[in-house]
Amino acid sequence: MKKFAVILAGCGVYDGAEIHEAVLALLAIDQAGATSRCFAPDMPQHHVVNHLTGEVSDERRNVLAEAARIARGTIQPLTEFKHEDFDALLIPGGFGAAKNLCDWAFRGDACRVNPDVERAVRSMAQAGKPVGAMCISPVILARLFSGVSLTTGQDKASADFIRHTGNTPVMTVHGEVVADPLVKLFTTPCYMLDASISQVAEGARNLVNAMLKA
Amino acid sequence: MKKFAVILAGCGVYDGAEIHEAVLALLAIDQAGATSRCFAPDMPQHHVVNHLTGEVSDERRNVLAEAARIARGTIQPLTEFKHEDFDALLIPGGFGAAKNLCDWAFRGDACRVNPDVERAVRSMAQAGKPVGAMCISPVILARLFSGVSLTTGQDKASADFIRHTGNTPVMTVHGEVVADPLVKLFTTPCYMLDASISQVAEGARNLVNAMLKA
Repeated sequence: MKKFAVILAGCGVYDGAEIHEAVLALLAIDQAGATSRCFAPDMPQHHVVNHLTGEVSDERRNVLAEAARIARGTIQPLTEFKHEDFDALLIPGGFGAAKNLCDWAFRGDACRVNPDVERAVRSMAQAGKPVGAMCISPVILARLFSGVSLTTGQDKASADFIRHTGNTPVMTVHGEVVADPLVKLFTTPCYMLDASISQVAEGARNLVNAMLKA
Repeated sequence: MKKFAVILAGCGVYDGAEIHEAVLALLAIDQAGATSRCFAPDMPQHHVVNHLTGEVSDERRNVLAEAARIARGTIQPLTEFKHEDFDALLIPGGFGAAKNLCDWAFRGDACRVNPDVERAVRSMAQAGKPVGAMCISPVILARLFSGVSLTTGQDKASADFIRHTGNTPVMTVHGEVVADPLVKLFTTPCYMLDASISQVAEGARNLVNAMLKA
């Protein structure tokens, strides 16, 4: 049975992991006959967004504790991640990926990646194991690699960043997966496009299946 | 195109809507070619549970604002629900259903149902439209009806409550749907059983399909 590690950036599209993408990734992994274990950085969220109004609130929340909502309590701090324990690593999207796992949402080209996220991604890539990223999460991979092909759907700002970091942005539509031929990186657009939840489920399934064949 | 209303009880299994059940219900509705609109009561959560530790925290959160995380911001206060606008009503599970939508988790046999939830459920039932409930949510229906058949899987405490309210508890396994022959009530156990996420997806799909045939 293949083992996936899933890195969650909180719980909610505007300040954490995109919930549909995260749940549908976990579903796709289970339906493919693989297992998953969830991880998140044990750190404060960059901020908390009221998802009803879209406004930033003055609350403080922890990325790991909020991600535990998606994981139904079964989650570990990302510092405990060991690449030896897993066959694949997957990062769902949501603004949290660009606010907590890296800070591309705020710093753009000067984006920095959380050190534990960097260690997890690099250790998997160096071990020749597939790393998948959904939605906006490919910006993390763009910062860490060069000369690779990545997709964020049809979005211009993130495509410019992918190009700026010496990588190749690939324009994609619903459900498409870009597999980098050099490093085992797999990306799919999901809610970077104006997608239905069924289209996101299809993207997650295609991504997981492509990673399992890698 | 059939229209579902979905009532969410927050965001997270221990104090809100169970996230997998909610997302997989929305997926099942979309995959069946129907549409969905989300609603939640605009009220404080009964409490906030840290999903990492399982402990109650001293935070205050609003059911509607948290449910908006699952709904990606597209949600309405339950007071705005009109039965004329919908063909079916679905309530995912999670402790929030028994803490915010009703208070069965705290008062057991003396359980009271939130007035807006009661109005939504009763108006649909009186209009002869199907109402579905997943996981622990059937306790809400137990309080509002008598002489109907409902399932909460194999759980004894909630089965006793269903019996106490003059209804018939039906023991079920993964993916089974209990359709009441009298009123159009549809229930399925999901995470009331020790279920995999694929089994919850199957339960959600079976529930939605049964409701669409009602």
